[in-house]
Amino acid sequence: MNAPPDFGVRPGEKAVELPAQPDAGVYFIGRIHTPWKERKDCPKNARGSDAVCTVELDARFRDGLKDVESCSHLVLLYWMDKAPRNLVLQTPSHYGVQRGTFALRSPARPNPIAMSVVKLMGIEDGKLSVVGLDCLDGTPLLDIKPYFASTDSVPDATVGWHRKS
Amino acid sequence: MNAPPDFGVRPGEKAVELPAQPDAGVYFIGRIHTPWKERKDCPKNARGSDAVCTVELDARFRDGLKDVESCSHLVLLYWMDKAPRNLVLQTPSHYGVQRGTFALRSPARPNPIAMSVVKLMGIEDGKLSVVGLDCLDGTPLLDIKPYFASTDSVPDATVGWHRKS
Repeated sequence: MNAPPDFGVRPGEKAVELPAQPDAGVYFIGRIHTPWKERKDCPKNARGSDAVCTVELDARFRDGLKDVESCSHLVLLYWMDKAPRNLVLQTPSHYGVQRGTFALRSPARPNPIAMSVVKLMGIEDGKLSVVGLDCLDGTPLLDIKPYFASTDSVPDATVGWHRKS
Repeated sequence: MNAPPDFGVRPGEKAVELPAQPDAGVYFIGRIHTPWKERKDCPKNARGSDAVCTVELDARFRDGLKDVESCSHLVLLYWMDKAPRNLVLQTPSHYGVQRGTFALRSPARPNPIAMSVVKLMGIEDGKLSVVGLDCLDGTPLLDIKPYFASTDSVPDATVGWHRKS
């Protein structure tokens, strides 16, 4: 009566067997609060909304925010645990074409760590107000990093498979 | 005779107690090969070297590379497991000033996940040739993502505490 291992895999998708054990552990160091309670409500990408979201860091880590207020933009890493981790080929419904997992920003990937570049609006009591997120309310936070234009900004980068509509 | 819990913490640094258990697990999905065998040999930042490095993805995940060759640049996430995870205030030796962990790109952070933007030079047999890394040879790989200039590039971003020499 168990569902087969590939239950939920759509036509054009391919799942693989994951390693038996994880290799390392991550801590959830806070939570991200957004206006979006269900996946269907989330903006299609991170520049799709001007909503101000709140990143709440756990109390034990708050001293780590020293000097963060001097950054105009931040890199946030967070944990997208609602998606399968075993897909290597996917057919995102809004594209309808099969792509490799590592050519996509889909949450379905072996390590469901999302990366977003956000604009910092302010910090108060361990809570950061930011613009540029598209994730569900309550998403676990993994890391906050300063965004350095010198190493992180590549304005002329291209993704060949992606055609603008 | 045990070392105190704050062993290794330098003046101006602050360590906190970490959670008793990790909240989630990550898989090492490959390895990064670079010319640098010791930390002292690594470039000071990712644009400090033009060395071509190799990202070797484990065989089980290689189908996930479909369409990645069409990307000019990629985001790589990798695991920096040589650094302490409990520092919230740090005094990096090359700056000599105390900063919060989340205002730094130091590998010492609660979740030692590094993010680098790299230029893709080619892919062959599950091995990606890339430029733009500064990590140790053998570093575990966590993720490969396409870099979208539309959401990831902010050329005018600033880090106020950082003064160019």
